[in-house]
Parts: sequence; C-alpha cells; structure tokens
Amino acid sequence: MIILLKKDAREDQIANLTEQLKEMGLESHLSVGDAHTVVGLVGDTKSVDVDMLKALEIVESVQRVQEPFKQANRRFHEEDTIVELANGVKIGGGHFQTMAGPCSIESEEQIIEIAKAVKAAGATILRGGAFKPRTSPYAFQGLGAEGLRLLLKAKEETGLPIITEAMDASQLPLFENVDIIQIGARNMQNFELLKQVGKMRKPVLLKRGMSSTLQELLMSAEYIMAGGNEDVILCERGIRTFETYTRNTLDLAAIPVLRRLTHLPIFVDPSHATGDAKLVHPTSLAATAVGADGLIVEVHNNPPKALCDGAQSLTPNAFATMMKDVEAIRPFAYRG
Amino acid sequence: MIILLKKDAREDQIANLTEQLKEMGLESHLSVGDAHTVVGLVGDTKSVDVDMLKALEIVESVQRVQEPFKQANRRFHEEDTIVELANGVKIGGGHFQTMAGPCSIESEEQIIEIAKAVKAAGATILRGGAFKPRTSPYAFQGLGAEGLRLLLKAKEETGLPIITEAMDASQLPLFENVDIIQIGARNMQNFELLKQVGKMRKPVLLKRGMSSTLQELLMSAEYIMAGGNEDVILCERGIRTFETYTRNTLDLAAIPVLRRLTHLPIFVDPSHATGDAKLVHPTSLAATAVGADGLIVEVHNNPPKALCDGAQSLTPNAFATMMKDVEAIRPFAYRG
Amino acid sequence: MIILLKKDAREDQIANLTEQLKEMGLESHLSVGDAHTVVGLVGDTKSVDVDMLKALEIVESVQRVQEPFKQANRRFHEEDTIVELANGVKIGGGHFQTMAGPCSIESEEQIIEIAKAVKAAGATILRGGAFKPRTSPYAFQGLGAEGLRLLLKAKEETGLPIITEAMDASQLPLFENVDIIQIGARNMQNFELLKQVGKMRKPVLLKRGMSSTLQELLMSAEYIMAGGNEDVILCERGIRTFETYTRNTLDLAAIPVLRRLTHLPIFVDPSHATGDAKLVHPTSLAATAVGADGLIVEVHNNPPKALCDGAQSLTPNAFATMMKDVEAIRPFAYRG
Amino acid sequence: MIILLKKDAREDQIANLTEQLKEMGLESHLSVGDAHTVVGLVGDTKSVDVDMLKALEIVESVQRVQEPFKQANRRFHEEDTIVELANGVKIGGGHFQTMAGPCSIESEEQIIEIAKAVKAAGATILRGGAFKPRTSPYAFQGLGAEGLRLLLKAKEETGLPIITEAMDASQLPLFENVDIIQIGARNMQNFELLKQVGKMRKPVLLKRGMSSTLQELLMSAEYIMAGGNEDVILCERGIRTFETYTRNTLDLAAIPVLRRLTHLPIFVDPSHATGDAKLVHPTSLAATAVGADGLIVEVHNNPPKALCDGAQSLTPNAFATMMKDVEAIRPFAYRG
Repeated sequence: MIILLKKDAREDQIANLTEQLKEMGLESHLSVGDAHTVVGLVGDTKSVDVDMLKALEIVESVQRVQEPFKQANRRFHEEDTIVELANGVKIGGGHFQTMAGPCSIESEEQIIEIAKAVKAAGATILRGGAFKPRTSPYAFQGLGAEGLRLLLKAKEETGLPIITEAMDASQLPLFENVDIIQIGARNMQNFELLKQVGKMRKPVLLKRGMSSTLQELLMSAEYIMAGGNEDVILCERGIRTFETYTRNTLDLAAIPVLRRLTHLPIFVDPSHATGDAKLVHPTSLAATAVGADGLIVEVHNNPPKALCDGAQSLTPNAFATMMKDVEAIRPFAYRG
Repeated sequence: MIILLKKDAREDQIANLTEQLKEMGLESHLSVGDAHTVVGLVGDTKSVDVDMLKALEIVESVQRVQEPFKQANRRFHEEDTIVELANGVKIGGGHFQTMAGPCSIESEEQIIEIAKAVKAAGATILRGGAFKPRTSPYAFQGLGAEGLRLLLKAKEETGLPIITEAMDASQLPLFENVDIIQIGARNMQNFELLKQVGKMRKPVLLKRGMSSTLQELLMSAEYIMAGGNEDVILCERGIRTFETYTRNTLDLAAIPVLRRLTHLPIFVDPSHATGDAKLVHPTSLAATAVGADGLIVEVHNNPPKALCDGAQSLTPNAFATMMKDVEAIRPFAYRG
Repeated sequence: MIILLKKDAREDQIANLTEQLKEMGLESHLSVGDAHTVVGLVGDTKSVDVDMLKALEIVESVQRVQEPFKQANRRFHEEDTIVELANGVKIGGGHFQTMAGPCSIESEEQIIEIAKAVKAAGATILRGGAFKPRTSPYAFQGLGAEGLRLLLKAKEETGLPIITEAMDASQLPLFENVDIIQIGARNMQNFELLKQVGKMRKPVLLKRGMSSTLQELLMSAEYIMAGGNEDVILCERGIRTFETYTRNTLDLAAIPVLRRLTHLPIFVDPSHATGDAKLVHPTSLAATAVGADGLIVEVHNNPPKALCDGAQSLTPNAFATMMKDVEAIRPFAYRG
Repeated sequence: MIILLKKDAREDQIANLTEQLKEMGLESHLSVGDAHTVVGLVGDTKSVDVDMLKALEIVESVQRVQEPFKQANRRFHEEDTIVELANGVKIGGGHFQTMAGPCSIESEEQIIEIAKAVKAAGATILRGGAFKPRTSPYAFQGLGAEGLRLLLKAKEETGLPIITEAMDASQLPLFENVDIIQIGARNMQNFELLKQVGKMRKPVLLKRGMSSTLQELLMSAEYIMAGGNEDVILCERGIRTFETYTRNTLDLAAIPVLRRLTHLPIFVDPSHATGDAKLVHPTSLAATAVGADGLIVEVHNNPPKALCDGAQSLTPNAFATMMKDVEAIRPFAYRG
C-alpha cells in the first residue's frame, strides 16, 4: 500500500502516522521528494481501511498495491481450482460443464421432462428454482420446500447433480442433498448468507451483482472462502447499464480479467444477461470462445406458459441445437 | 395494461390469448386497426407477468398503464403518510427530521458523546451501526448485539429515538426497543428480510439499492407493506455510475419523482451518497431545498480514527454548522 | 404509434388531438375502453416528436410501434448490405474482414512496417490515425495531413485499402483516396459531420458512442444514409459503465441485436473496448463467435513507445497468433 | 506522478526508464522498498501519457498526483473567474444569473414574446436554439441562420444578452453578435470545435457530456482555455444512468466538487437533466441551494406545440413562479 502525503505535512504529523501504522502491525518506508512524500507499507494490509487513511489530514491519496482478496487470488494459488461434485463431475481447470433447466420448478412432470431433455442434449447439471427472488411481492415466489423435493426427484430419476438458489440462511438446512448452492445476483452482498454458506462444505455458484465490480465479486467469494469453503464458482450474468434492448449488458471481457485475478472457475449465464431467448445461442458461443468454464442456461418445455422468465427460456429443441454449436466451438476457445 | 399484437396474429391465436387472460381474471378489450391490434386489459393486473406475455409468439410489446405497486401508490392513498415514533416524533407530511450519529457504534463513551452532540445540534433521531455490511470479510464487522446494547444506553441517556440496520432476519429479535429498523442498500432486494420486517409493527427506513430504479425501490416498499407494515420511509443514498469523484451519484430529482408516485416519507443520505465529508453540507442543503422529508447523516467525534467510513463523517462542530443552514433553508424548500 | 390517453380526457380534447394529428398527415384509430382510451396512428410516424405528444395534457403515455429508423431498418431491406471497396474487398453478408494498424501514424517507416506485418498476418484493411481525438489538449494530436500522406504511401506499398478517422467536416477534402472514413465514438452524434459524410459516396465506419444506445447508433447511421450514402459499417467499441478493470464494457450481445434490427455490417473494436492488449485476443474470439462481420484492432511495432494507446496495442507477433485463432473459430461462428 | 514498479524490475530496466523520463524533461526520485520500488516524478507531467507508462513491462501502476488540467485548475488560480458580458452582466464569483428561453426559435413573434416574458420574470440572459442537434434526421433541425437573425432581433427588442448553440466550426462566423456560445453535451469532445471557440474572444458555456466524468469536462474546458479564451462557463445537465423516470440523472454533488477543482463559473440545466417540466422547479431550488452560479431553463409560450422538447418546457407563468422561489432561496445557498 502506498500513501501519498500532502506537500505541507509536518514531520511530527508524519511521525505520528508511522506510529499509528506500527500499532496496526505495518512497517513504513518513507520516500521524501521535493514535491511529495510517499509512505510505502510493508505487512499484511488486507484489513487496512483505505477510507480511514484518506480521512487523515495529511494524506493526499492512498493506493493499494495488492488486491484486498487473498484466498481467491491467483497470486497465492497459481493452479486452477477444480470443483468436483459427488458424482465425479468436475468444474474448472479445463472441465467445461453446462447447467440447464427451468427458472422455476413448477411440477414433478415439468421438472422431470425438462431434466431428461437437457440431459439428452448434453447438460451435465440440472438447474431449477424453488425459492425465487421476485421484484414484486405479487409475483409467483416459487414452490419452496416442495420445489426442492421435486428437484431431488428429478436428480434421482436422471442422475444429474442439481443446483438451486438459496435466498436466506434459514433455507440452508433443506439443501443437504443439493449439489451446488446458488447465490443470486441480488444476494451477492448478503454477507450473512455468504458467511453461512462459507461454513458449509458444498460447492457454491456465486453470481455477480447487477452493479458489482469484479473486485466486489471477488471480495464476496472471499467471504465464503474465509469461512473455509473453497469450492466457489463465479458467474457473470450481465450488469446494469443504460442500454435497454437487452435486460442487462453481458460483460464477457470479465472472463479473461477474472482468469488473471483468480483461480476459481468462471461461468456465464446468458439467459439472465440478455433476457431474450433469441440472444442466448449467440452469446453462449461467445462465452465459450472467450474461455468460460461453463454455462448456466434456462430451458423450459413451454416458455410462454412458464411461471417466470418465459421470455428468456429456450425450448429443449433450441437448447439441443445450441449445445451442438457450443461443443463445436469448444476446441477453439481461448486458453490463457 | 396494453398488449400490442403482431401484424400477422391470426384470429384463433387472439381468441386463445383472451381466453388465457380470462382465466387470470382479466377482461380484454380489442381494438383492431389496419396496422395493428391492441388488447386493453381491465382488472387487477398487478400480478400479471409482463415477461410471460412478451414471450407469446403473437405479442409485439406490452405496456403497463398502472404502476405495479399498489399500497405504496399515491393514486390509491392521496394523503402523505406520517410515521410517528413512540416518543411522538413525526416523520413526513411536513415534519422534517434529521437522523445523525456514527457509522459504527464503537464504545459506550463514543456513542453517548456523539448522541449528546447531535442532539444539541438539533438532530431528533440517533443513528449508529451495530451490524455492519462490509465489502471485505477482513474489515471491522460491527459490535453486533453488544453494539445494540450501547445504542439503547445512548437512547436512555439522551431520550433520542434510535435507528440501526438489520442485515438478516435472524437479528430482528434484538430490535425490540429500536425505534426504526434500517434496511441497507445492499439488502433492498433481500426479499426474505423484507417479508420479515413486513410482519413487524415498527417503522422501517428502506434505502435505495446502488443500482435500483425508483420503481424497484417502490416494489421493495410494497413487499414490506404487503405484510401489513405501513410505516416505510424511503431513502435516496446515491446510485452507482461511471463518475468517480464522488462515491455514488446522488439522485436528487428522485425526491420530487417519488413524491408524485408515493405517499411515503422520503429521506436523503448525503454521507453515503458522496462519501466525502466536505460534500455533505452542500448536498444536505440541496436535499432540503428539493423537498426531502429529512436527512440521515454520519457524525463522528474523531473521523480519522473512526472504525468505518471516517472519510464521510462530519465532526460534531461541522454538523452543528450544517444544521443551522438546513434550518435556515427549510422555509424556502419546495412543496409540491 | 400508440397513444394512451388519460382517464379524464374529454371528447372535445380528443377531437382536438385527432385533428392535430390529421394536420401532420396521420390517421387516428380510437379504441375506447372502460379504463382508458387508446389512439392508434397510421401513417409515416418517423418524424413525429414523441416528447411533444407526451407534453399534451390528455396524454398518459406514447409508445412507438415502429422503430424511428427506416433506411437502416431490416424490415424494409431484408438482404444484408455488402460494402465493396475499390480493390474488391467485400464487407458484410458473410464476408469477414480484419482492419489493423497503429492508433497513430508516427512515421513513414513505422506505418509501412506495421502495414506489411498486419498484411502478412491476414489483415485485409490498414487502419491508422492521422487526426486524433485526445482528451487532453497537451497530448499528441496526430500528424494530420502529413499522417494521411504517409498512410496513402503505405497503401501504395502494400495494396491494402485504408481506413482513418475524420474529426471535422473541414478535413474531408483530404480523404479522397481513403477507402473508409471512420467516425469515432465521440463524434457519433456530431450531426454536421454525419450530414457531410452522408453526401459522400464512400464507405463509413461509424463507431457507437460511449454512452449511446443501439437505437441512437442506428439513428446516426440513418443520418448518413438519409444523405444518400448507404455504405455504413457499424462498430461496437465498448460502452461506459461503473466497472474499472476494463476501459469500457464490451457489449457483445449488441451484435445479434443489431443483426435483427439492421442489414448493415457490424464490426467490433476489442482494442478500445478493453484498453488492454492482453484482453484483445480472447474478446476477438468472442466477437467472431457471436457473429461479427469483422474486427478493427490496434497493432504497433513497439507498443511501449507508441505515441498513443500503447497499453492496448498488440505487437505484430501477438496479432499474428490471434489471427490464426480467429480464422480457426470462424467456421463455427453464429449465423442467425 | 507516482510510478509503482513491479517486484521483479531489474536495475538496468529501471535505469532505462529514468533515462527515458529524463528525455521527456522529468526528474525521477527512486524509493526502493522490500516489496516494491516507487518512482516519483518531478516536473511538468501534464503531457505525460499515463497509458504509455502503464504499457511498460516493469510498471505495475501509475498514479497522477496533479490533475491533468492546468488553466482551469483552482490550484493555480485561486480567485473565482467572473465572466462579464458586453452589457455588463456578470457571471460567477457570487453573481447568479438565469438564462431562459425556448428550446428552438420558431418565429419572430414567438421568440420576442418569450423574451419579454422571461425578462419580466427576472431572467437576465435569453436562450434559444437556431442550430439544433436532433437524434433523428427526420426531426426539426432548427431555423439555422434565420433563427439567429430572429434571436438577435429579440436581443435588440429586450436588451437581453443572448446565448445559442454552435454545432460546427463552420457556423461560428454567424455568432459575432451572440453574447455566449453554447457547446452542447454531444459536442463536449468535438475537439475541433473546442479549438475554434478557443480562438475566439467570447464567453462559452460548455455542457457536460452525457457520460463524461468531471475530469473530462475540465479537460474540454482546458482545450478552450489553451487557445486563449478564458471565459468558460461549465454546465451540469444530467448524466446517463439506468434510471428511466427522468431523462438523465442530475448530478448536483458535481457543483461543490467542481467548485473545489476549478475557478470557472458553474451552471445547471434542470430542463435537459430531468426532461420533465414538473421537475424543473424543485431541481432549480436544489441547484441554487447547492451553490450553482446560475440556471439555464427552457421556457415556451405553448409547450405542447413546441417544435422540440415541449415536455420539458415551462410556461412563462410557471417560470415566473419558480424565479420567485429561486430568489427567495438564494441568500441561504451554500458558499464554500
């Protein structure tokens, strides 16, 4: 960490500052120039509050040299993390997987039919929502515990591992037989929930918040990892911008940026990113080409009657066509 | 709700659609033109899923005529809501209040000293954080239950009603003697938490999410009100944009926009909006002038040593000066 | 165009409105419902001012049914536009091209060396800036007319057609032997410049403005086409968002969206979109996969000494490697 | 300027760098720590290309200590700039002025009627558009030279100084008797136009671009000032964000931020910022309270028939009411 002092900082003030930093366990290296004095800090600065330093009268600016995330940081963990599910499916480190299924679980018949269809098309993990975050309190909120029961039935029936979203720590006891816990975009900074899943020993797919920077995404992964759970999968799902033709703006450059910063697997959700079934196919190809470790895609057997997000769901047929193209492009995808 | 059909929609498809809408309790009014057919819907459309309609093959576009929020809507509740606290302090409907205090409660001495100072300067409600949402798991997370105990002590000592943030439903049992529960920007769409505070009979200050539209803010207020808790105070605290001189971009036009849309009181948080103590004074004057019902301001007796958000905290002296100017401008503020 | 009237609109007011619309050459179709009256407009609405209609006392809202662009619109021109250069190179409609070269032309030696290198790697068009839009008046502003002369020399030497940016109508007389005129992001709504290039009979590459919607991009293309110049190539180059790891946020979903809306060729500029040479390769693969008609890439023989944008320039070697991967992925790219 | 080098930078590479910096006229001060080496630069760094430095292999990051604008910078010019018009009207340094008039000049009768009305209400400068930047080529483009003639007539008739927009350098010869040249948001980075008005000796009102940072706004002011024209008035007019209730998001915190950074007068345009006549009054009060040096407001004698921007124009009556409230609030406005 580099602290730039104001021109008029007095010696006693500087001594005072280095003393204060020493109390925090940090060694200071001073560099006095004609125009400015720079303090370089050596030691573990990840818990230093940059804003607190900026508030000091003699400080002009503060710059972090090291990223504030540690366990998620590739600098300290060069090898790609590979998340392995109970049935042996591997995610990351060259293992590409596709998660597919309906936005909401609606009935036993529906989830099993879709599960079989996406499996046949090549999906290796089944997604389906039981607890649904909906903007309106009047919209369908998901089947809850009953939905989870049906999803587990589909798992039994097809052998597909399952991923589903937890919206609150109180729901977690129901997730015992779920293979991957999803933390949704709206909960990316629900720190209590992050801490709770950090205590579990179960893979977590963490979606980027609608207006979260990549650093904030990594800090939220760090919350989970700080609790001892190292199986975190990151997921880009579009950010909020001024453009309105698509529901969100898919940020695909984020994939190679994250690849450099972290060793964690990185997924892309083209369905929520675009909000439009017709755009899922081309953006899935782009996500594959740019080097994502996998996709999470909404598929519904009857999109216009889906209880949520119908507009962005592929039919099983459209999904199968897309999967063929994704498979074809994979050998030519970017690899660092 | 107005549904515009595609040019080539066949009669049997249209009949099919109106039948489907009827099942949802909605009456359709058709208007067939040369260039397009329009379906106008009569009935309670607040639970209709616009995206589902858009996914229908024959639909070109869908437009809501009525806002999707009802209890928060001024159309159905013309009078300003006035929130009254246990000690008689009124918020909204012409009653302007200022909430002030430290970002984090750090010690008994600190919170009581600040409480006395802000009371002397004219604040009528004491703020202070016990549970703190921090981007980094390594940053100070607040004193938790012990912090709440100290805040209650400051309430006793000064008679000031208190506001503090709940981050998770599991914390709510501790909030019995808290006067106003704050829902932070990061939790604006933590729907489980909203549902829980909706069951309580205690005022809630709901902060706008960092990238939330005003409609989403009102839908989150609707979550709380749908549970029966009508005492919701909205709070603008800056949105995330590309500009970096300020931490967020304070959206003051939101105040008169919200005033038209809703009857709920509207506050402004200039401290989090700007992230810079020097900007709190001028933006507080602007917020007052534009017609806000009150301010929530960070004050710390020693900002450079504050355990969080020191850079944006006013000293008690600076706060007192600001309060004088706010008082002076109030008679000239905008009133619809 | 659909106009939704307020509930309390009186008959005489409505008659007044339809009369006013008639004067504008538009026929009105009324649909009177219990809850609202809808006016459907038939006729050429592209010059109707939506804001003017919204300002009318009896109007609740206005919705365009048809896009406000006509010549750029695929509805009226189903076939892909293919832009053909003087030397026979075709752009669009399945003809994929790569434009490459330095940000700024610096010397005869530099531009010819780079031109040869990018040609050898497979680029079919040479880019190079003579007039440079720079944020700072103190930064290098380009060699101007002398730069153009050197670029033409490189064209002669290599046979590559050339593209370079015009910043002002007064520069256009110098562009006679330039093959494609580039309109930069900052000038996307420099309407005088658009009108002037609209009068020319020379292909134009129009970059999306930093905060322009896709509709605004198409309206700017429409400005050029309205002047009679139909050879417009659109170019996505990243939009401005809150994320700071990349200079801009590359919006690749824009490619299939534009494909549906317009028949014009669509390029991607991964260099300006990311601002980081290391990200150009993966995002170029993604842009190819998602269906772009071509790329425009910055290449410099000595990036750290480049007079502008060094950080985002590829070396000729890195460019050649990338081109091989782009070629490999092309057969598997998305095609509507 | 502070350059942070990578850990593994070799001595010969560092020597090479300092040599290169010396050639640019900059003296380097090295500070070698255990964890990093910092190079502090002394000298005039305003023309140093930060991106070029970042592209160097041994550079980790670069941080400017001084802002890249100089003539607009308050550090080098402590006193507020006061712009004085030919008729003695002063702008800035405590002199608050209101510019008002129609979006477009439509006829002699219209502009004179409005001019008289806004003068009677207290406006001291008349605005009116002759050359209009319109998103659509099919929309009314302004009366051009004829519009300017009518505006000058209104000036004669009322004695009000006038402000109107130039969209292209070729129009400037017509601006001889115009008192203030407006550079619109879309042209904030039309550098050729900026250079041309920089050569003139006539006040310029420079609007912030739709997605421009405050630093970019100041760099554009610097373009004008570098040409010798020091009479620049800055104008905040809303930035583009995801919120859609208002046309743009008015950034009022920008006023005190700019006040600290620059000595130039700062105006606010509430009409374009909000796009809604009903919001102009409250946001004008807020702009006044936060310390703006003046307002620029759209007024039309018949808003629903206005040829552009009718929705955001005040009637003369509404303007007069607003002006009274602005006058009342002025004595209580923020003053640094």
